[in-house]
Amino acid sequence: MIPVYAQHVDGSEPGAHTGQVTAYALKTAGASGSLVNHSERRLSLADIESSVRALQQQKLVAVVCSNNETTSAGAAALGPDYVAIEPPELIGSGVSVSKANPEIIKKSVAAVHAVSQKVKVLTGAGIQSGECVRIAIDLGTDGVLLASSVVKAPEPAAVLRDLVSKL
Amino acid sequence: MIPVYAQHVDGSEPGAHTGQVTAYALKTAGASGSLVNHSERRLSLADIESSVRALQQQKLVAVVCSNNETTSAGAAALGPDYVAIEPPELIGSGVSVSKANPEIIKKSVAAVHAVSQKVKVLTGAGIQSGECVRIAIDLGTDGVLLASSVVKAPEPAAVLRDLVSKL
Amino acid sequence: MIPVYAQHVDGSEPGAHTGQVTAYALKTAGASGSLVNHSERRLSLADIESSVRALQQQKLVAVVCSNNETTSAGAAALGPDYVAIEPPELIGSGVSVSKANPEIIKKSVAAVHAVSQKVKVLTGAGIQSGECVRIAIDLGTDGVLLASSVVKAPEPAAVLRDLVSKL
Amino acid sequence: MIPVYAQHVDGSEPGAHTGQVTAYALKTAGASGSLVNHSERRLSLADIESSVRALQQQKLVAVVCSNNETTSAGAAALGPDYVAIEPPELIGSGVSVSKANPEIIKKSVAAVHAVSQKVKVLTGAGIQSGECVRIAIDLGTDGVLLASSVVKAPEPAAVLRDLVSKL
Repeated sequence: MIPVYAQHVDGSEPGAHTGQVTAYALKTAGASGSLVNHSERRLSLADIESSVRALQQQKLVAVVCSNNETTSAGAAALGPDYVAIEPPELIGSGVSVSKANPEIIKKSVAAVHAVSQKVKVLTGAGIQSGECVRIAIDLGTDGVLLASSVVKAPEPAAVLRDLVSKL
Repeated sequence: MIPVYAQHVDGSEPGAHTGQVTAYALKTAGASGSLVNHSERRLSLADIESSVRALQQQKLVAVVCSNNETTSAGAAALGPDYVAIEPPELIGSGVSVSKANPEIIKKSVAAVHAVSQKVKVLTGAGIQSGECVRIAIDLGTDGVLLASSVVKAPEPAAVLRDLVSKL
Repeated sequence: MIPVYAQHVDGSEPGAHTGQVTAYALKTAGASGSLVNHSERRLSLADIESSVRALQQQKLVAVVCSNNETTSAGAAALGPDYVAIEPPELIGSGVSVSKANPEIIKKSVAAVHAVSQKVKVLTGAGIQSGECVRIAIDLGTDGVLLASSVVKAPEPAAVLRDLVSKL
Repeated sequence: MIPVYAQHVDGSEPGAHTGQVTAYALKTAGASGSLVNHSERRLSLADIESSVRALQQQKLVAVVCSNNETTSAGAAALGPDYVAIEPPELIGSGVSVSKANPEIIKKSVAAVHAVSQKVKVLTGAGIQSGECVRIAIDLGTDGVLLASSVVKAPEPAAVLRDLVSKL
């Protein structure tokens, strides 16, 4: 079964929180985890923390998105499973962060691991080929986060196959 | 001269950011620093980081507020001068965090220093007397953050004097 | 079939809007409409308008929540199907707006209809019995909006039956 | 004396609202009024209304910004002194709304006046010359709202003089 992650989760308990997405609702719907603080759905520091806690209580995987090296360290301090570093200027750009800005990946991996060795790092923004993935892994990250290069591709399956071709 | 801190600062550069408070404006107005992410003015993780950077570029002191031990660590990872831990349920309550929840102070000091030895910790929420301040200092914090117990006191000067009486 | 309404909808088109709930997604899931701007999920004026537009494009019913007489008129000007007036201090209070503040209902109905005769008005906040519903209808509203009095009742079905008993 | 308007105001009373800008503070600082809900500082419907109320209590002029014809009507229903219609795609663009989209101005004036004859309309976005101002006035608006064409001009005074040259 392919694990499905939500795009967003709120940290609130079930209750008077109309219009919010609880971790319990995700669990019930069969999700494996959730993104938290995606660049298109930024949260306050307190809300990121409560979302991570809520996911953990439901044994769901927490992937906190961040925009640079420093916020990656801040996100890591909250103890999620993954921090996904995505420089906003490269998201959906077709320019891969692993080629355009390998330095930010290396520094983010170091910054995250300085705070916690347990938190894994994903590289996002502009990832589009097996070569991008290879570079990201070689720079010390544990995987990639992507959407547009697959979703908007004429042949998504071909892109997916290429993405894993250099592992 | 009594140093004055702003209640909030935005991380934006001077430019098309109508209604925002820049660090440059604070500097020009004579501020010594600013609170960032007060419980009544929560910011996204990315905005807290850009506010801290903007303050540092203007050589202003950055005090990032946090609500628990974990977010204190997250705030510390952003490299501000101070993290001010304020459990929201005690803010303005007249119940001092240093008496009601000394454990959260100790843990927050430890969590902040695990991330960075350079970041100093302030204790906030319900601080109202010299005894509260003494306890906060003894628990490892470098100072306190308070408002209502002085501002709303019949004799603010007397409260201020008492606050420093046990140092 | 019982019509189901969503608790929130974003006005964005399908696309790069991670973590947002589109009207198209609601339509696909079988919803009949959505609340917009619930007191627990306040939106900007621009976002309320785009949410109403997005619902209308999907032929879904738009129910915009408001907090007083004046914002009810503002909401009505956006052309939703319904404006649901809910004084925040009474939401979930067990004190019915129709008994505690009938004047706000009358004034809101008048304010809404001064802007548009087509927009219908719902009364919310503290509605818990057939008597509350009767009063709300008699004051000129077209229905009620409620949650806690049913959801948290020991016997929800009994409450539901009572709610419609005086029509 | 040149009247000065604030870029933003919060609707809160003086009190525990750290980091907010009260109407009372604006009054004390000598402001004549404030923008509310500028495109770079969007507010919830409830907050726009409380900001307008707070300004009125201090006898300050309330200018609510809006982004299209429908939200202009919504803003007008809140009873401010002015509604300033600024299509976001033209703000700071150097392309004048009065030339690029005169229809939106005419429709917004009509929509605002259908809700309230007392609310005056300002035209914003891309206004840069006396001719733009002339067109805006001829289309039924009471004035213009602008920033970049003056603030970023090599000779702001010359632009200001030109702006009023066709009245």
